[in-house]
Amino acid sequence: MFINARLCGIDLNKHQSVQVPEAFGVVAGCMYLIVMFLFIPVPFGSAVLQNSAFPYHELAKLVTALLSICCMILLGFADDVLNLKWRHKLLLPTVATLPLLMVYYVISNSTIIIVPKPLRYLFGFSVDLGVLYYVYMSLLAVFCTNAINILAGVNGLEAGQSLVIAASIVLFNFCELSSDLWRTHQFSIFFLAPFIAVTLALLKHNWYPAKIFVGDTYCYFAGMTFAVVGILGIFSKTVLLFFIPQVINFLYSVPQLFHIIPCPRHRMPRFVHFLVFQVKYFYCHTLNNFSAFFFK
Amino acid sequence: MFINARLCGIDLNKHQSVQVPEAFGVVAGCMYLIVMFLFIPVPFGSAVLQNSAFPYHELAKLVTALLSICCMILLGFADDVLNLKWRHKLLLPTVATLPLLMVYYVISNSTIIIVPKPLRYLFGFSVDLGVLYYVYMSLLAVFCTNAINILAGVNGLEAGQSLVIAASIVLFNFCELSSDLWRTHQFSIFFLAPFIAVTLALLKHNWYPAKIFVGDTYCYFAGMTFAVVGILGIFSKTVLLFFIPQVINFLYSVPQLFHIIPCPRHRMPRFVHFLVFQVKYFYCHTLNNFSAFFFK
Repeated sequence: MFINARLCGIDLNKHQSVQVPEAFGVVAGCMYLIVMFLFIPVPFGSAVLQNSAFPYHELAKLVTALLSICCMILLGFADDVLNLKWRHKLLLPTVATLPLLMVYYVISNSTIIIVPKPLRYLFGFSVDLGVLYYVYMSLLAVFCTNAINILAGVNGLEAGQSLVIAASIVLFNFCELSSDLWRTHQFSIFFLAPFIAVTLALLKHNWYPAKIFVGDTYCYFAGMTFAVVGILGIFSKTVLLFFIPQVINFLYSVPQLFHIIPCPRHRMPRFVHFLVFQVKYFYCHTLNNFSAFFFK
Repeated sequence: MFINARLCGIDLNKHQSVQVPEAFGVVAGCMYLIVMFLFIPVPFGSAVLQNSAFPYHELAKLVTALLSICCMILLGFADDVLNLKWRHKLLLPTVATLPLLMVYYVISNSTIIIVPKPLRYLFGFSVDLGVLYYVYMSLLAVFCTNAINILAGVNGLEAGQSLVIAASIVLFNFCELSSDLWRTHQFSIFFLAPFIAVTLALLKHNWYPAKIFVGDTYCYFAGMTFAVVGILGIFSKTVLLFFIPQVINFLYSVPQLFHIIPCPRHRMPRFVHFLVFQVKYFYCHTLNNFSAFFFK
């Protein structure tokens, strides 16, 4: 079906030029949505059966999270099919987070962050970031959706790193289940457990030698799932700690991403030597110009 | 972008074989979602500003409706790209309506229908359909998403019929704004006003001679929007009255849809003579067999 639709690619790291179906993340994403749709009534079963006050705010939170994830699956699939431009890839995740931020505002609206111990003598125990906190959450969603996408190019890397991040967050959630905020951590587990299941299924087929490629669809879907649990689970700062390899890769990739040095369509390991040369060339060139400007 | 992605088709009703971009409904659908995302805070502005009790049930209703519509845009685009099978086209809209039915259950749960006057001497003033009402609503969503799709094949027909249905429903909603249920009709207008706007934009380019095709994406998106406003606007029986031409077309198409007679991929006006012949052949053949069975 995918090859008929020309949604396929050649595995550039292999000697044989075999066509591999691409954008298989859309199957994982749809399966995830189906499972979550069937799951929606579960947390509210007791409220319905006992005829107690229905927790509409919890329902709104759950559905909004699914809406943002569904939007990202749509955007990712559109990217796989249509090769969207960078401005779309930055603008659309920002818009898709608007319902999330709205729900965060009406349900929690906590914009105070606890300052890490080494910095407390500078900023005090906590700082109220106000509207900047919303800007941070919006940027977090854009970063998460793109960070997994730019650390790719080896069989199983996208699904593998997502599995590691998801498993780490679930472990963190389990540790926090005894805290006062156990409900938000339970919410996170609700979303990540089926995510881990579909990722494992995807990884089985995407593992070396890959029989399928996950495509941008999966990267966006995974990134938005992490952003959603971080934002609505009220641990949007902590979630960034699980993204340290992606943050390092992002910083390392900045010269390519901003087109300061050429960026190939697929950044593969065999480009490494070429890249190192390019980076060296860029820095030497810039330093030469810099020294020429000041000292000549 | 669409032609590069091979999302294009030949206008079979034209003499020139010009490639026309297909599945442009995904652009309309995404624009609709962006507008609706920006619109979400508007109905709740007064509750936020006045610090009054926040209407979470209204928010849940609005977001669930958007979730179902977003799902259908994703399914429609997947159908345009991957040519899904009929079982997917029936199963996935059913799953996508589950959140809608859940929200309907917790917010309204009205399963009583008022019997039309000519039938009251048989059934009384009203009948409680119970769980059958939920089955009806689920089937309504499947019907709406596919009904527009099977009445197609002429430039502007999909967007045109959707525009007529949407304008008719909005007119009906305006007439009902003075009734007790004005809030649900206002909800319907919130959804249909931007829908009419994106449909007009699409129709401009899809009008004869079509510069774009709307694709299954638009048909599913339009159908689900009508189902959503019908179900959550609590006029799911009335909405079917606006679908009378589509119901007639569905009944007329039954022999093809169930593969009793051959069904071409695109049912165009030029197939009419061929179809009439096929239908005649089918009925004559069946009648001959029937008479042979009983009378020979």
